[in-house]
Amino acid sequence: MADFERRRIESFMKKAFELAKKIGTKTAPNPPVGAVLVKENKVIGEGFHKGAGFPHAEVEAIESAIKNGFDPKGADIFVSLQPCNFYGRTPPCTQIIQKYGIKRVFFSVYDLNVEGKYEIKGAEVIGGVLEKEGKKILLPFLTFLKERRPYVILKYAQSIDGKLADREGRSKYISSEKSLLLTHRLRAKVNFILVGKKTVEADNPHLDTRKFKNRDILKMKKFIGGEFPNPVKIVLGIPNFIKELKIKNGNNVVFIFKGIDEEFEKIRRFISDDKANNISFFSIKEINPSEILSFVYENGGLTLLVEGGPKTLWLFIKERKFDELWVFIAPKIFGGGKGFDFLDSFLFGEELNLTLYELKRLGNDIFLRYSAREDKMIWDF
Amino acid sequence: MADFERRRIESFMKKAFELAKKIGTKTAPNPPVGAVLVKENKVIGEGFHKGAGFPHAEVEAIESAIKNGFDPKGADIFVSLQPCNFYGRTPPCTQIIQKYGIKRVFFSVYDLNVEGKYEIKGAEVIGGVLEKEGKKILLPFLTFLKERRPYVILKYAQSIDGKLADREGRSKYISSEKSLLLTHRLRAKVNFILVGKKTVEADNPHLDTRKFKNRDILKMKKFIGGEFPNPVKIVLGIPNFIKELKIKNGNNVVFIFKGIDEEFEKIRRFISDDKANNISFFSIKEINPSEILSFVYENGGLTLLVEGGPKTLWLFIKERKFDELWVFIAPKIFGGGKGFDFLDSFLFGEELNLTLYELKRLGNDIFLRYSAREDKMIWDF
Repeated sequence: MADFERRRIESFMKKAFELAKKIGTKTAPNPPVGAVLVKENKVIGEGFHKGAGFPHAEVEAIESAIKNGFDPKGADIFVSLQPCNFYGRTPPCTQIIQKYGIKRVFFSVYDLNVEGKYEIKGAEVIGGVLEKEGKKILLPFLTFLKERRPYVILKYAQSIDGKLADREGRSKYISSEKSLLLTHRLRAKVNFILVGKKTVEADNPHLDTRKFKNRDILKMKKFIGGEFPNPVKIVLGIPNFIKELKIKNGNNVVFIFKGIDEEFEKIRRFISDDKANNISFFSIKEINPSEILSFVYENGGLTLLVEGGPKTLWLFIKERKFDELWVFIAPKIFGGGKGFDFLDSFLFGEELNLTLYELKRLGNDIFLRYSAREDKMIWDF
Repeated sequence: MADFERRRIESFMKKAFELAKKIGTKTAPNPPVGAVLVKENKVIGEGFHKGAGFPHAEVEAIESAIKNGFDPKGADIFVSLQPCNFYGRTPPCTQIIQKYGIKRVFFSVYDLNVEGKYEIKGAEVIGGVLEKEGKKILLPFLTFLKERRPYVILKYAQSIDGKLADREGRSKYISSEKSLLLTHRLRAKVNFILVGKKTVEADNPHLDTRKFKNRDILKMKKFIGGEFPNPVKIVLGIPNFIKELKIKNGNNVVFIFKGIDEEFEKIRRFISDDKANNISFFSIKEINPSEILSFVYENGGLTLLVEGGPKTLWLFIKERKFDELWVFIAPKIFGGGKGFDFLDSFLFGEELNLTLYELKRLGNDIFLRYSAREDKMIWDF
């Protein structure tokens, strides 16, 4: 392929990527996909998939072209994921592409749901365009498909010496305003956020996205038997007080716990006090990453953000059940305090090794983003 | 002053700074000073002070001009520190400047050793040129003069979660080769390096500068009654074995300790075994920062690098007796291990707050340089 032609193709594919990234994981449990329709080097239509039940990106792009008075016949289509060839809630995209006389189909990532190679009558099909970049966008979806669990991000703020709180447990706003803004941006992009009950009791956090102004208004629907806007907040255990919790304000909270009598008693007391909407209680067998990840997976979550505290984060670190780690380091030293220290540990040579992906200065704070994956990949959202 | 003229002056002053930085703190306990002699916009001579007993930078610059066949008469001189007007081991520079008919004297930092303002007959004297930058170079010297202690740098490598070693104390080469190179560069620039005896026993380190190829060959002389090349290594306490220690290879080690019988016994055993040169034993009243800093100050050290372990570093952190902190963060998580945790701590709101000065990526490691000073300044070496 000529260099010029390759660059042209990649540039349209990047446009498809940008469209996919617009929707992020709000499509859960479906993948985010973008598509661009091009005729005579001009974009005549574009679209992205909005989630389960909505038309696929290819259809959105074709329909947007027609709506704007263009004929898709003879056009090229650029899609971030291989067009489907099966019946789901919508007909196969391969049929639609054929029907409208699309001439060439460029796609990035091969879809694991598509079985084997296929042909589209009258069209040339070229797969694997910027596949590595395409995979980065689809990483939560690919993890969901292959490993039957959400893509897991651990996030916390610490002092230089690795303390998440002082020795009396105080931790609120260790890091700066700028760090908070980045956290809110991340929260707006994930399906589920998990915290331990001690964090809720100590800090009574909102866990919201209020500082991220450009957040997507699309919502993940029909989870856990109700309609939960994105992100759903999960609390591990039942906090000592529920009525006054700030996380409730968004009306999308799930408390999960091991079903012991004391915990049930707290719930009963709460329900008799207040008939809140969209607050759920779920009992799981054990408090461990497998159970928690199964819960999220079964509720269709592509992404889970674990925000702490140290005990909850350590659950995932210890079992190496996460994909990436976000650490904010504030320019402080506590000496003693709450870190991962009071728990078990790795010995030298067996310690958890990560790969540094991003490093940013935020005033006097720093922000570090690590990949914990063997393939060293990281989610591009 | 015209903008052009100011830029011209600053550019020659920066040349004087570069000369001062060449010698670093090897001049201890004298300050590093550079001087540039300029005639008709051309550098005709340059020099820097090489240490106690050697000519001052001004003299070096004037003599280099004469040696190269230039007449200093009518020239401008640019010096990073105010020229002296008193007799030390050399005559006052003000007299020399006058003698050679220098027309204008530009200097950066006002010297605390000079009392009041002075005039140099036949010359115009302009002080405070790029004074802030000049002070950064002289920071160890200014600290030494004002606070009667060396400029203290704490340095260590840790895992992301703030562990300097695993729970069994293993720590050697937590960080990468690139981090080590930067450490060796720093070591080559300081007068004294301090470690605790446990670090010596656990890691048996060289504490040398072998990876820093361009190190200055000039040596700090006549310290602690002998001739110690720069840097002098201080070990806090007497390690269980001395003969096999790698730090001895450079022949510039001082063991300081609180004089208890058991420690004395170890020394006696060592001395009877081996008559090593340039290894000294000093007893101090208490193992605390004040005593250690007094020891270094009295031996003319402008700079002290504290390299650990956690217990030794914490001595200085706890009492806020340091100027800057160097932290290397390796992309690892240990969970439990040796951090500052087993010691006392600051509570939220009272914790040690630092100012981030530099942030660098070194492969998968990161390097952080913080100022702990109230004036937020940092040494430019």
